[in-house]
Amino acid sequence: MALRARALYDFRSENPGEISLREHEVLSLCSEQDIEGWLEGVNSRGDRGLFPASYVQVIRAPAAEPPAPAGPRYANLPPGGFEPLAPPGGFIQPVQQQQQQQQLPPVAAEPFPLPPAFPPVPYGSYQPSQGSDDDWDDDWDDSSTVADEPGVLGSSYPDYDGAGGGGPSSGRYRLSTRSELTLGSRSSQQPGHPLHGGGGAKSSATVSRNLNRFSTFVKSGGEAFVLGEASGFVKDGDKLCVVLGPRGPEWQENPYPFQCSIEDPTKQTKFKGMKSYIAYKLVPSHTGQQVHRRYKHFDWLYGRLAEKFPVISVPHLPEKQATGRFEEDFISKRRKGLAWWMDHMCSHPVLAQCDAFKHFLTCPSTDEKAWKQGKRKAERDEMVGANFFLTISVPTGPAAALDLQEVESQVDGFKSFTKKMDESTMQLTHTANEFARKQVTGFKKEYQKVGHSFKGLSQAFELDQQDFSATLNQALAFTGEAYDAIGEFFAEQPRQDLDPVMDLLALYQGHLANFPDIIHVQKGALTKVKESKRHVEEGKMEVQKADGIRDRCNIISFATLAEIHHFHQIRVRDFKSQMQHFLKQQILFFQKVTQKLEEALHKYDSV
Amino acid sequence: MALRARALYDFRSENPGEISLREHEVLSLCSEQDIEGWLEGVNSRGDRGLFPASYVQVIRAPAAEPPAPAGPRYANLPPGGFEPLAPPGGFIQPVQQQQQQQQLPPVAAEPFPLPPAFPPVPYGSYQPSQGSDDDWDDDWDDSSTVADEPGVLGSSYPDYDGAGGGGPSSGRYRLSTRSELTLGSRSSQQPGHPLHGGGGAKSSATVSRNLNRFSTFVKSGGEAFVLGEASGFVKDGDKLCVVLGPRGPEWQENPYPFQCSIEDPTKQTKFKGMKSYIAYKLVPSHTGQQVHRRYKHFDWLYGRLAEKFPVISVPHLPEKQATGRFEEDFISKRRKGLAWWMDHMCSHPVLAQCDAFKHFLTCPSTDEKAWKQGKRKAERDEMVGANFFLTISVPTGPAAALDLQEVESQVDGFKSFTKKMDESTMQLTHTANEFARKQVTGFKKEYQKVGHSFKGLSQAFELDQQDFSATLNQALAFTGEAYDAIGEFFAEQPRQDLDPVMDLLALYQGHLANFPDIIHVQKGALTKVKESKRHVEEGKMEVQKADGIRDRCNIISFATLAEIHHFHQIRVRDFKSQMQHFLKQQILFFQKVTQKLEEALHKYDSV
Repeated sequence: MALRARALYDFRSENPGEISLREHEVLSLCSEQDIEGWLEGVNSRGDRGLFPASYVQVIRAPAAEPPAPAGPRYANLPPGGFEPLAPPGGFIQPVQQQQQQQQLPPVAAEPFPLPPAFPPVPYGSYQPSQGSDDDWDDDWDDSSTVADEPGVLGSSYPDYDGAGGGGPSSGRYRLSTRSELTLGSRSSQQPGHPLHGGGGAKSSATVSRNLNRFSTFVKSGGEAFVLGEASGFVKDGDKLCVVLGPRGPEWQENPYPFQCSIEDPTKQTKFKGMKSYIAYKLVPSHTGQQVHRRYKHFDWLYGRLAEKFPVISVPHLPEKQATGRFEEDFISKRRKGLAWWMDHMCSHPVLAQCDAFKHFLTCPSTDEKAWKQGKRKAERDEMVGANFFLTISVPTGPAAALDLQEVESQVDGFKSFTKKMDESTMQLTHTANEFARKQVTGFKKEYQKVGHSFKGLSQAFELDQQDFSATLNQALAFTGEAYDAIGEFFAEQPRQDLDPVMDLLALYQGHLANFPDIIHVQKGALTKVKESKRHVEEGKMEVQKADGIRDRCNIISFATLAEIHHFHQIRVRDFKSQMQHFLKQQILFFQKVTQKLEEALHKYDSV
Repeated sequence: MALRARALYDFRSENPGEISLREHEVLSLCSEQDIEGWLEGVNSRGDRGLFPASYVQVIRAPAAEPPAPAGPRYANLPPGGFEPLAPPGGFIQPVQQQQQQQQLPPVAAEPFPLPPAFPPVPYGSYQPSQGSDDDWDDDWDDSSTVADEPGVLGSSYPDYDGAGGGGPSSGRYRLSTRSELTLGSRSSQQPGHPLHGGGGAKSSATVSRNLNRFSTFVKSGGEAFVLGEASGFVKDGDKLCVVLGPRGPEWQENPYPFQCSIEDPTKQTKFKGMKSYIAYKLVPSHTGQQVHRRYKHFDWLYGRLAEKFPVISVPHLPEKQATGRFEEDFISKRRKGLAWWMDHMCSHPVLAQCDAFKHFLTCPSTDEKAWKQGKRKAERDEMVGANFFLTISVPTGPAAALDLQEVESQVDGFKSFTKKMDESTMQLTHTANEFARKQVTGFKKEYQKVGHSFKGLSQAFELDQQDFSATLNQALAFTGEAYDAIGEFFAEQPRQDLDPVMDLLALYQGHLANFPDIIHVQKGALTKVKESKRHVEEGKMEVQKADGIRDRCNIISFATLAEIHHFHQIRVRDFKSQMQHFLKQQILFFQKVTQKLEEALHKYDSV
């Protein structure tokens, strides 16, 4: 029996890890047990995360399955939430955050609950989050019993309400909530936040650990790394280089670039046909050896990568879907989504070369033992989180030193850019979706009505008993058919041009949802540098320690700028090619229409 | 003070000359004095005609101007109705028509009033109906005081309710009510009608005059002609020939075919600027001499022609309009409408050569005296109505004789054809109007929203601080503008292609509204032949008289078939050329769109 709760008030998520609630909304709970006033659950939009326990009422009646699949909303958040493990470095103390009360939603009279103070998570030692070894069994996502009829997938272009990023607009890619994007600006309203303004200037005498349990800077391991607490043995194979390109830091190019096709999604069954799932054929260009992978394998890989790389934007996977998973339309869309994802994976110098991805691309599908070995190895990887930063080597020497103020301004500029780009991609997605819907419905209907009326006239003319008008009647009938066909052209067109644009936009919306966290880590590091400077001036910190902090912040900055550079590069490449594709398809479409009309026109030559 | 009345019940017009009423509708009355239970007035749709006095209640309160111009709905019905003049051939007796009671509208409890028994109208001696000599003064139609602000002409493509032909669908042309079209079939339900079935087989010993005061057959003079009562001196210049073409009877071609352009509608004023009106420049190709005419001159001419030619479909003029008469859009539409009208006038062998038309085309606009003389002459023309038939000469000899049964079947076939054509032109007009409206509103909006979104994305991209993406940003901005322009193209397009189609359809709807009367006259003549045959068989009529009836019916049949033939000829010609024009414009449109998109595509070449 699923545990459910009903939201008593609206709640707007303010930090990553939290989810928004709407009054009366029914949520499924991960556990009835609250932790310091917070519950974890999945809201009606399928977002999983934390919310104040006092904002909901647990429903005791027996309930159906939760309305949306309860997959983790944040790929780097393990499904069980942050489980209290044995702390390696002391406990975080609860902090006073009374001032957050001023952000209380007007409908909710309760005081804003204090965020629960969890013991810190040890860096690089997350419990294996997804995929136990028996991953062929617990496949909630892309398998079902044979009796499971595929659900009906309403219109391909559903009415788009445009309100809120968490609605139907999130489309085919898993997106973080929009609120993350505005996190930077919103965080600055949080007076208690030690990374911003007043918080850091308070009484603390030493550079303290960040007390905000939900800070990406902490979660990612960025803070621990900057403070010099990360340690691990970096093998040669793990080394990542940032180099100085003509426009600043770049990831060192992959010396062996490759691509990987994703084709032939096929339905496969196991347990003597009791379970079925879709497998995709992957052929990496550098091996030429095909392997078959299921969505759950992609999902596992995504989880690994998102956990391992704090300042890299791991492309989001196309959205999970509970119903209609075996419908051709859905399978085709998912295949295209996975192909986009794969393209971005292969294009990224760091992601393309990482071990888990290599394993995913090359391990023979039939060798289950090898698969499990590689999987376990990837899950035991110690170079994640804080340790990941140890693997980055950056240009050295005075010429290569970054001006941190300059970096800050660049990152701020990029933040404004991502915000604006996110808004405009949302807008374009909305427009494209509406435009597609109109073509499939209204435009088609209008042209076909014209066709119908011409046909009607031709039928009337056929009653005229005049042999000399037979060719006119035929020409009119043909014109009617031509407009009918043009109506069909309109309806079929979005699949050719708007759908790929929307796929691209969805992929980029995923990236844009990643960047606030990335920016957050860099900003956190920068704040630590500023703090340490002040502490040195005040004689409260040794210069050597501050230098270490600055050097490590330098590494994070190099990586961040390299990632920003990579983003711009693929963005320009992708939008150029996609706009070209779109316009070419539009041109072909209008040419096809013109051709049809010309055919109709010629019918009148002999009248 | 205008005389007004309110309809107490619905009344459906059953015969030409009657108008339909809707319960509660306010009418303006021509006179408060009823004539044998009938009143004449103008209903809220601007139709003028007769209706039962008992169906309305006269309003005694002071009233504003009637809502619609009170022009005669039927051009061959003088504004004063059929005025009782001195009868040349005895009085019509009232007849028993009790059986008409079965056609009573369900809401009206009053007995159906008997049609008033008027003295017959002398053929060819209608009182001058329109345009007294001081026609420069009483110009209600296309002049106004200077203070008269042009009204606002809502949308060019108003919402079209499609219900009823008298609604907005009648559009730019004056149409008879739809009910006329079904008159033929409906008349057959009138048991008292002497032309159909039982009525004629009754007691009357001789071929009787038609007692139905409202029969087109009577009104047109067809009956009088068939019965041999028409007499007049036919001058050579008045002679009209029907010849036998390869497909049957045709009007003899105009040996001097010409066209006439209508251009440069200009606003002119008189009475020292107190009154203004629009004058059109006409240049007939056979004289090359330009003359200026106002709408009221067209209207006068139309009235003459419709009166004179009972079996010829005189093209309807574009609709009168009370407001917005000086708006460019309206003037341009009216000019086009008049040009269509003129084209059909010039194309018709009989109409093109008639004296009134010649006078209209050639009389110098500055020579007021000559104009008035010609006008008076046309109004005194005796060769109208019954006498008109005298002017028709038809092929003679046994080879040319028409098989009346064959004629009847052809005319019946044509009747079905016109009915179907009327339905389908109504349908197409509706569709075209809707399609135009959608292009001006929805289509434009959709494409411009796409343009706007692309521009938004380009604006976002401009924040990217990356010089290498400047060309992409420009290309995106250009794409946005291209879609904006395409939206405009859509909005402008209906003027190029759909408007001319709708103009053509409106003109043809006018013709289709004329044909029931024409068919009615022919059918009336045919019935007389049948009656006379029977009477001869019964010994009640001399063979010679019956032969005369048959010969004269033959003339009407020749004329009717010639007119039908002419209609088919211009129909095929017009619809061919208009469909070609439409398709060519559509092709140009889609090519323009394609070109715009190609321009946009090329912008990405340098990205």
